[in-house]
Amino acid sequence: MNSYPFGSGRPDPNSFPNRGLADAAMRILPELGGELALYPGPRGYEPMRKLMSDRFERREGGGLPVDQISLTTGSMQSVTLMAQYFVEKPGDTIIMEEFSYSGTIGAYKKEGAELIGVPLDEDGMRMDALEEAISSATARGKKPKFIYALVTYQNPTGSIMPLDRRKELLDIAHKHDIPVVEDHCYADTVYEDCHVPSLITIDHEATVLHIESLSKILGPGVREGYFSGPEPIFSEILALRRDGGPSTLNAAICYEFFREGLVDHLASINGIVKEKRDLMFKKLGEHPDAFEWFSRPKGGLFIWVKLPDATDVITCEQAAESRGIDYATGKAFHVYHDDVPYLRLAFGYATLDQIEEGIPLLAECVLEHQG
Amino acid sequence: MNSYPFGSGRPDPNSFPNRGLADAAMRILPELGGELALYPGPRGYEPMRKLMSDRFERREGGGLPVDQISLTTGSMQSVTLMAQYFVEKPGDTIIMEEFSYSGTIGAYKKEGAELIGVPLDEDGMRMDALEEAISSATARGKKPKFIYALVTYQNPTGSIMPLDRRKELLDIAHKHDIPVVEDHCYADTVYEDCHVPSLITIDHEATVLHIESLSKILGPGVREGYFSGPEPIFSEILALRRDGGPSTLNAAICYEFFREGLVDHLASINGIVKEKRDLMFKKLGEHPDAFEWFSRPKGGLFIWVKLPDATDVITCEQAAESRGIDYATGKAFHVYHDDVPYLRLAFGYATLDQIEEGIPLLAECVLEHQG
Repeated sequence: MNSYPFGSGRPDPNSFPNRGLADAAMRILPELGGELALYPGPRGYEPMRKLMSDRFERREGGGLPVDQISLTTGSMQSVTLMAQYFVEKPGDTIIMEEFSYSGTIGAYKKEGAELIGVPLDEDGMRMDALEEAISSATARGKKPKFIYALVTYQNPTGSIMPLDRRKELLDIAHKHDIPVVEDHCYADTVYEDCHVPSLITIDHEATVLHIESLSKILGPGVREGYFSGPEPIFSEILALRRDGGPSTLNAAICYEFFREGLVDHLASINGIVKEKRDLMFKKLGEHPDAFEWFSRPKGGLFIWVKLPDATDVITCEQAAESRGIDYATGKAFHVYHDDVPYLRLAFGYATLDQIEEGIPLLAECVLEHQG
Repeated sequence: MNSYPFGSGRPDPNSFPNRGLADAAMRILPELGGELALYPGPRGYEPMRKLMSDRFERREGGGLPVDQISLTTGSMQSVTLMAQYFVEKPGDTIIMEEFSYSGTIGAYKKEGAELIGVPLDEDGMRMDALEEAISSATARGKKPKFIYALVTYQNPTGSIMPLDRRKELLDIAHKHDIPVVEDHCYADTVYEDCHVPSLITIDHEATVLHIESLSKILGPGVREGYFSGPEPIFSEILALRRDGGPSTLNAAICYEFFREGLVDHLASINGIVKEKRDLMFKKLGEHPDAFEWFSRPKGGLFIWVKLPDATDVITCEQAAESRGIDYATGKAFHVYHDDVPYLRLAFGYATLDQIEEGIPLLAECVLEHQG
């Protein structure tokens, strides 16, 4: 059976730089000397942190100090550390977008947190709704421990929060003295000129923790991510690590590969993935009866698709699965796990042929499952 | 100032196979194809798990099924996962050797556990004391959640628990229905023929979780370890992972390096480290007034040294530090953190010259700080 892998957020597999990484390993490993016989410490391999700090400076204008960066096993370890730090007891609340990354929702629920979803519009989290959510939680004695936000290429909706709203978000966080965890893991997957500075660069008052990842531009099999934030919180979060620190071997190879090749690598993979995104836009647009509306993200790896309200999302998913179509249900990203008439399509991993053939098949599934 | 690094348990830095790992990366990475663009899953790169399973079969006679191995960030992540799984609430008890690995003591305290130390003799944990500790904890409503044991090349004492006592330990664990976590992280650092089968291979009734590490034979900067155990506990522990799984890049390079080279690598590094161990024995033996007694471990990376009871261990440590001598205090390994008149010397990392010169200097420090 043909397969149509539109489910998981993975980069293009054929552009993965296996040879480039191998060459990087060949150059850097002999230079490391006895460094691999040492514990890496909770921050990890310093040249990689320096490279990420420089990269951030070039992209965002602001700075992440090298000593305030800690490398982690993908960004998932960073995401989890935030809850381990801020959530003190079961039932403590965390505010996030009403639709958010399913991995984060699962991890924070495992930490025992109560999640509060803030409705979104085309510009991301709504600020009136954020104020309301904070007031309401605080009124019942559950002042939120932090706000988790995907303000750049929101997952799953693809939206970009405009600068004014970012400032408003930080003002609200500051006013209520609530930290903000900014998950910036899609920052380098960008297909159109649309840069908006990250929260941590524009902030001067609220507490912002910042998370990034190489999973979207290199591959999640490499498990390389990092977080940054102000002292003393940064060091206190580091103290929660229980893994002896991040692999120097892993970090050193990534460092060497990206040291001179980052710009070229991004141009190459983003070019390839943009073509897939554009084809998905085109194919989705050919079936307006099945795909009533869909997002047109300028970055990230996902398109958020509105189905007809009458769609039986459960039987539709089963039918798609039986035809080899893998996608993510809206429910998986809904903080309260409702059966919403949405689905999320990932466009990085599938081939152009799979998109060309799979989207019309998916439209058939949707239309065949109207209640 | 000269330095005498006898503190941390690290392998010989000069024998680290940087070139071998680089060659391994060069061979394996082009073969991985798009695999690095996939999430590794909670078990991690299968060929590495297969290699570790085969290795275990050759060394121990028994088997660790490939599907019941999960690769982790060093063995520390494995050690921590055990407490995250078994410890349900603060104050739950864990039984361990009275002197045990300081990293484990710290990690388990962070999980909120109450640690119960079982006295050791030259053959490891004393079984009469284990029975007594279990009964006493159970009588006060705190039946231990698990027994954490370093039965092979115990850290810090270097002892090896004989087969009969291992069987007795498992009988006691079975009788009281308490799981055993066997930290086997030194299993491959062996300098004399002294093999005793691991608990997980001789066990047929008690629940045994088994932990191994590459940190002692390759380097802690590589952060590669794993654990195994019976179902359904194994899968339930996997579900506690919050890091998106272990790095395929890291694991694939280690796999390729060890695929054909493990036996030679072990012969080479263990030969180098044995020479250091033997020199440390010799130098310690020349100062019986300072080093009243010391262990003569057949494996592992540490010698446990008894100082005169009158030693002021705090001022002695300060004096040693001022002369560049780094060692670990007995207190760091004591479950109740007492100022015991012991210290632990690591013999893998320092050079022969540093041992030759440093041990007499350390003897001076000890003798100068008698109360």
